[in-house]
Amino acid sequence: MLQIWALAGIGEVSADDDLAQLIGDALAAADVPVADGDILVVTSKIVSKAEGRFVVADDREDAITRETVRVVATRTAPSGHTTRIVENRLGIVSAAAGVDASNTPEGTVLLLPEDPDASARALAAALRDRFGVRLGVLVSDTLGRAWRDGQTDHAIGAGGVHVFEDLRGEVDAQGRPLVVTLPCVADELCAAADLVKRKATGMPVAVVRGRGDLVGDLDLPGARSIVRTGERDMFRLGADEAYAEGYAAGRAAR
Amino acid sequence: MLQIWALAGIGEVSADDDLAQLIGDALAAADVPVADGDILVVTSKIVSKAEGRFVVADDREDAITRETVRVVATRTAPSGHTTRIVENRLGIVSAAAGVDASNTPEGTVLLLPEDPDASARALAAALRDRFGVRLGVLVSDTLGRAWRDGQTDHAIGAGGVHVFEDLRGEVDAQGRPLVVTLPCVADELCAAADLVKRKATGMPVAVVRGRGDLVGDLDLPGARSIVRTGERDMFRLGADEAYAEGYAAGRAAR
Repeated sequence: MLQIWALAGIGEVSADDDLAQLIGDALAAADVPVADGDILVVTSKIVSKAEGRFVVADDREDAITRETVRVVATRTAPSGHTTRIVENRLGIVSAAAGVDASNTPEGTVLLLPEDPDASARALAAALRDRFGVRLGVLVSDTLGRAWRDGQTDHAIGAGGVHVFEDLRGEVDAQGRPLVVTLPCVADELCAAADLVKRKATGMPVAVVRGRGDLVGDLDLPGARSIVRTGERDMFRLGADEAYAEGYAAGRAAR
Repeated sequence: MLQIWALAGIGEVSADDDLAQLIGDALAAADVPVADGDILVVTSKIVSKAEGRFVVADDREDAITRETVRVVATRTAPSGHTTRIVENRLGIVSAAAGVDASNTPEGTVLLLPEDPDASARALAAALRDRFGVRLGVLVSDTLGRAWRDGQTDHAIGAGGVHVFEDLRGEVDAQGRPLVVTLPCVADELCAAADLVKRKATGMPVAVVRGRGDLVGDLDLPGARSIVRTGERDMFRLGADEAYAEGYAAGRAAR
């Protein structure tokens, strides 16, 4: 049985708040005591806020540009609004480089945490110390997906949690090896947590209980290891952008 | 509180099994009675098996070709193995058109269900009738993702479940509209369910309790409405394929 609930009692988070203290206090005040094997899924927004990653809103487009390592695709809607799909400095491919304009103080936008894996590990370490239990922390962000509408939550930081469940040595019910299966459990946990956090409720942390087998040492690989960029990325450019590059090269090669 | 558990007691599924009967019997025998608002997440594999969607294994590559509407990208590994990312007849972009070679009888591979939305609706209708409760059914499949390693489960069929949670009319904690947020809750529910089903255990159905607000009429849009193809798809081709198309056009243009 997997149980997932949103953690009550975390108010508005401001720059220089001690997030481990805030989440720890909410855990201490909760009806259900925190237990060994619990996984906390923390919305990246409050990690960013505690890290003071605000920039003034007039600079949103500049902020996106600064967070961008590489433009993957752009598309201008009939309304004139341009969407930029970019790879950001964390290797994550998403719209607007994760620059967030909702639920932020008036006149500001919010960048992603500086290093979400480090943030997750620091939170896990502090909360393990405080409660004396072996828990894990994931930092989640809401991402669109190629070929599918809408968004789902994904892991962008992990501390003390296996991000993949490696079944590659296991066999199926017929005894044949499960060759290609590598469930990205960190993303599945973040998606599950979004079902209880909901966007508008001001409940930015969820507790997942029932997959303690995925909790491990704090030096496990982080969510950075989920990102696929470079040579193995078959979608390093949008189709229009790649076509245009090819067209220019073809013209030049005559 | 969201609770998710795998449903015990569903054995091997064969062609022409009555899947609604099998799942219904497992629900009837379970310790926890099925309740209003429960959502069943059913692995597409058993839907396919009950529909007899087996083809002989020698035809795997042919089967992929027949299920393919459009090749998006291909990549040959140093080992010589070629991965084909294709759009299948359901509009889903994935590796190998969903043709499945694990956990199938020796010598066979399995195609996706003929019409997973129709299968989900038929299951939901039959189980609503049998138990007199308003439940929803999702049919899930394991998919890779652009730009991220590993796989997560996604919804390819939906019966009586809202696939999106439309927050577009809602406001954030500061009272500003949540403009662009359209959580794909059907995909999040399938991802969550995968955390209890696990691949090797022979537990192909999970019950999700706690989001009964997402359960609705059987004529709600299906999972087909999640798929983004055609004009709105910025990744209709892999970068190499689009570049090559552009290059050829550039060479030809005078």
